[in-house]
This record gives sequence, C-alpha cells and structure tokens, in this order.
Amino acid sequence: MKKTLSIVKIGGNVLDEPAALQAFLRDFAALGGAKILVHGGGKIASSIGQRLGLEARYVQGRRITDDATLELVTMVYGGLVNRQLTAQLQALGCMALGLSGADGNALSAGKRPAGAVDYGWAGDTGPERVNTTLLQQWLDQGLTPVFAPLTHDGQGQLLNTNADTIASVLAQALSAVFRVRLLFCFEKKGVLSDPTDDASALPSLRREQYRQLQDKTAVSAGILPKLDNAFAAAAAGVETVLIGSAADLLANAADATACGTRILA
Amino acid sequence: MKKTLSIVKIGGNVLDEPAALQAFLRDFAALGGAKILVHGGGKIASSIGQRLGLEARYVQGRRITDDATLELVTMVYGGLVNRQLTAQLQALGCMALGLSGADGNALSAGKRPAGAVDYGWAGDTGPERVNTTLLQQWLDQGLTPVFAPLTHDGQGQLLNTNADTIASVLAQALSAVFRVRLLFCFEKKGVLSDPTDDASALPSLRREQYRQLQDKTAVSAGILPKLDNAFAAAAAGVETVLIGSAADLLANAADATACGTRILA
Repeated sequence: MKKTLSIVKIGGNVLDEPAALQAFLRDFAALGGAKILVHGGGKIASSIGQRLGLEARYVQGRRITDDATLELVTMVYGGLVNRQLTAQLQALGCMALGLSGADGNALSAGKRPAGAVDYGWAGDTGPERVNTTLLQQWLDQGLTPVFAPLTHDGQGQLLNTNADTIASVLAQALSAVFRVRLLFCFEKKGVLSDPTDDASALPSLRREQYRQLQDKTAVSAGILPKLDNAFAAAAAGVETVLIGSAADLLANAADATACGTRILA
Repeated sequence: MKKTLSIVKIGGNVLDEPAALQAFLRDFAALGGAKILVHGGGKIASSIGQRLGLEARYVQGRRITDDATLELVTMVYGGLVNRQLTAQLQALGCMALGLSGADGNALSAGKRPAGAVDYGWAGDTGPERVNTTLLQQWLDQGLTPVFAPLTHDGQGQLLNTNADTIASVLAQALSAVFRVRLLFCFEKKGVLSDPTDDASALPSLRREQYRQLQDKTAVSAGILPKLDNAFAAAAAGVETVLIGSAADLLANAADATACGTRILA
C-alpha cells in the first residue's frame, strides 16, 4: 500500500505574521509521515524591493518578473524566507531541506512565452517536470523538502513560479508513488459560498458548482488561481485536495474531511 | 578502498568575474567523482547592502554580523549566489544541491561568544558538527552539495560562517569515509614566498616554514585565515590540501601535486 504524503502550501498571510508563522511551523513539524512544504512570498519582497528602489509591476494580478525582480525574489524567497523557514523547522525537530527547483533538478519549468503580455522570467511547469525519483529518495531518508516558488529551465536560468502551481504539480507527480493529501492553506476557513460571510465555507466543491459560483461572481478573484490549481490536482487523481485555514487543516490531519473545503474532480 | 571526494572552495574573486566564474563552473562540472563546492560571498553583498542603506562593519578583518547583516548575507549568499550557482551547474550537467548548514542539518555551529569583540551572528563550527551520514548519502546519490557560508545553531538561528572554515571542517569530517582532496582556490598560483612576486609560489608548505614566513611577515594578512584552515585540515588527516588558482587546481585534478601549494601537516 502506498504511504501517505502531505503537501502543504502556505502563502504570505502566514509568512507575514510572526505569531501565525510560529503556530503553523509547530503544527507542520508535528505532522506525522512524509511531508513537503511549499511557500509563497509575502510582503517582505515588496518592502525589500522598495528599499532597493524597485517598483513591482503587475498585469492581471500577476507580477511581471523583469531581471531586477527575479534577483529580488531569488534573494527574498529563495534566500531569506526559505533559509529561515528551514532553520526554524530544524529547531522543531523537522529535517527540512530548503529547495529551489534547480536543486537536484527537483522541478524544472519553461519560460512562459511572451504573448499579449510578456511576464518576463515567469516559469510554467507541469507534473512531467518533477524529479519524482529524487524526491521519493529524500522523503524516504526522512527529509522534508521546503520549496521556494522558484524553478529553473535547465539552461542556467532561474524562473519565478507560482507556489500554488508548484504544490499542485508536485502532488500530481508524487501521486504515482504516494497517497497524496494536498493542503492549500489560506486566511479563510475554506471556499466561501458568500464572499461576505466567513461562516459560509463549503464542505466540498465540484467543478460544476465552481462554475456556477464563478457565474454568480461569488468567488473572489484572488482565489481563482488557487482553485484552478486545486481542480487540476483533483482531476489528475490526487486523493485529497483541501483548501482552508492552516490551523484547521493541520490540526485535523487525521481526519482529512473534517475541515476546509474538499475539492472534488 | 575509500572513494575520492574533492572539496573545492571558491571566493569572491571568482564570483565577481562572470568570465572567470563560467570557466570555473565548466571545470568544476567536468571534475570526475564525488565533489562538494563551498562558496564565499564577493562584492555583490556589499553593493546590495549599500543599496539597502547598510554599512559593513569590520573588526580585525572580520565582518560584524548584526541583524541587518545576517539578513543581507542570508539573501545574497544563501539566496542569490547559491541559487544561481546551483542553476548554472545544473545546466552543465552537474546535479548540484544548494545548501545552508540548516538544510538536512548538514552543518551546525555555535554562536561565537562575545569577548573583547562581539562578532554578532557569527558561527564557529567543527568536524563534529557535520552530518556525515547524510552528506555521504547525497554524494552516493550523485548529488553535488553547494554550500553557502551559512550555518545554524539548531535553535532556529542562522549564523554567518567563514567559507574557508566550512570547507576545512567538511574535509576533516568526510575524511572518515572518503579520500579527501581539499582545494582552496584563490587569485594567486599558491602561497608566495615573496608576496611581491607572483612567480614565487611554493610547491609545498609545512607548518614550520609557515611560521618562518609569518615571522618575516612574508605572508599577506588576507591569506592567514585560509592557511590556518588549511593546516587544520592537514593536521586532522585530510589526505591532500592544496592552495592555488582555480584553473590550475581543477585542470590538474588527476595529478594533485602538479599545481598550487600543497599544505603538509
């Protein structure tokens, strides 16, 4: 029987709050079995970017990754955030291993082709680009990979890649060898049927319902890329895909359906 | 019989020159057998520090690592430099794995006690703090660890640690399981008997000669920490310890004694 693997994605809302981060790291370190952490950025990149005199440029909610921005995210996400998370997890007895996709060629990507918008050094990836063999070896050694939202193109170029996408793609690839639980942690209890009511988290969501919610514009724009990645994972056979608050999803690790919104294919 | 392991230290002089760095990375990637790269910083940390409004403070040639400086070196050495080196080595077919000492608890350290000088977040380490088992597993998997000059104290704190020291300490610990060749690459052909004459590189240096050179102040101050780390490695039984130019030391990998200055216990 396949072993269970938890893949946990956290975003800026956890990273930006020291108390929330400490609580999350304790819960994550206490999580049994094989596990992987994928982290996004947070406000620190913007604040360091401002100090460096860089101005963030966004098109359709996506940051344009020019040369200076790639340097910034490599420093902040790949350096500061990733190295500190790794050191803090080690202190909690978790054998963390901080990674960009270049490390051990764990996750490669292709530069997004410039179309109507040129996103710069943004990398698109997929499950076929995951080094499943090496990740399985590391997990079997008791290591906990901690992914920064950075990939590489195999030609020496680092690329900025969405952390939700990385989590989804890892889950899809590693479902070949593990029973994967993919947990997208964010600031809400789950996907809300009414964006103005925090108590309206849905217990589960099918793609058809999701389309209906979108038609009613009842889904906030910020969660769309997360949901697209979640549905892609569910459709590809990832056993459990949950969206919810870190505290709920990790505290109820034993009962995967107790909290958050379960995404169904 | 033990397998051979090459541990190569490069410093700022290589990192700061794109052409020299490319040449070095090609030579390093082509080096056969198990290998580890340890890199220092270079001028980029100072230039980014200036843009961030940080002023570097030195006491007796050593940088004082206050909170802001630790953040800076974590970003620049642990992020920008380490991640880029790893991606570039991957492009050359080398299965690089970028590390701080916190990753897999590869190398821990203790904060240097504040005495006459408080060096701040500087970490002192030793061969007993190397995770030899894990490094051996990684090397057996065909991975090439690439160490940034950062360690951790096991309590969640990253520490700034001299790259020459890291290379020496790794060589000492891994000599238990490998025949180690420790190569300190710098801008000269070797240890010069006359600092004003680049052609005066010594073929070898024993500790007694070293003391005599020091008495004659014929050794430049910048090389003293490097030589101390080199002698520590030789005294601890590291089979081959060489100091010289990257091009010479790597090109003559097959004949360890052909180039550079061999450090003898």
